[in-house]
Amino acid sequence: MSQAFRQHLEKLITLTDVEFDYVWSKFSTKKLKKHQFLVQEGSEVLHDYWVAKGLLKAYHTNEEGKIHILQFAMEDWWISDYQSLVYRCAATINIDCIEDCELLVISAENRELLCNELKGMANFFRKKSHAGYVALQQRILFLLNKNPQERYNRFLELNPKLLQRLPKTLLAAYIGVSRETLSRLSHP
Amino acid sequence: MSQAFRQHLEKLITLTDVEFDYVWSKFSTKKLKKHQFLVQEGSEVLHDYWVAKGLLKAYHTNEEGKIHILQFAMEDWWISDYQSLVYRCAATINIDCIEDCELLVISAENRELLCNELKGMANFFRKKSHAGYVALQQRILFLLNKNPQERYNRFLELNPKLLQRLPKTLLAAYIGVSRETLSRLSHP
Repeated sequence: MSQAFRQHLEKLITLTDVEFDYVWSKFSTKKLKKHQFLVQEGSEVLHDYWVAKGLLKAYHTNEEGKIHILQFAMEDWWISDYQSLVYRCAATINIDCIEDCELLVISAENRELLCNELKGMANFFRKKSHAGYVALQQRILFLLNKNPQERYNRFLELNPKLLQRLPKTLLAAYIGVSRETLSRLSHP
Repeated sequence: MSQAFRQHLEKLITLTDVEFDYVWSKFSTKKLKKHQFLVQEGSEVLHDYWVAKGLLKAYHTNEEGKIHILQFAMEDWWISDYQSLVYRCAATINIDCIEDCELLVISAENRELLCNELKGMANFFRKKSHAGYVALQQRILFLLNKNPQERYNRFLELNPKLLQRLPKTLLAAYIGVSRETLSRLSHP
């Protein structure tokens, strides 16, 4: 798993062997089964997670029990409740496993430590956040401006590999339509 | 303006006088009048901007000429077309001035240079991006899950100072409702 993770980091930065070994020493691993929770609403969130294998969803459940998907995360993606992690407040979302998962785990403290000790890691997380920010801006414009068919097409375009792994109910919850509406949308 | 900017940076990081002077040397200033454009759709975006004075909006105009607001930016906020800046593609949004503006300007190259030379600056932009990411996630959950009244209340809660400075039409375009719907919403 360490080689895959190093390749992931080195898409954006370069690290010496010594630096990578130090980075790697701050991570541990975690395995979860399908349906297990990684984060539960109301709990304290102390870690950030990188997906080595599997698929998860981060979502909010409203008063009527309807779920809204904030993000999916598959191999090579990061996931956590970042609001809780950054502002040290209780989790406002749930994260659970759509498939069995293998994760790398780093505490918020160790992530800050790495960013303060290694400029490369500060720049890695800066670039990741920045790309995430841009992706969310695009999602907002699509939510404000596009109809369900267009949002569905966009999802397929951006996440072709994810589609086969996702139950249709979850895809509907991400796009913001009912399961019935989703089934009326056509493949582009 | 340099003191206000230093205070802004030092909310998140500390810099020596020498480091701050170096950072400051990479910025220039720009003044724009109300209604002037900072970024126009289709153009190349080469700079990031910090608002020293004034108020701007970043927005997308759809085929029917309806506008959707991506963000406002007043004193102490950063604004640009980050998608265009990060991926070197043509701007997909417009940014113009709601009030006369004074801005600090840094090129994308110089921002990268500062982040590669000064760990503090890499961490400053990392933390800014991260906070921005969290704010956008919250906005997505509100768009998916909340009605216009709740979205209006939330905007007032987060941006009490901005409200008096914003034409109602623009507030409606941010919340994602018509001007008529907005006028039916009550003050909480």
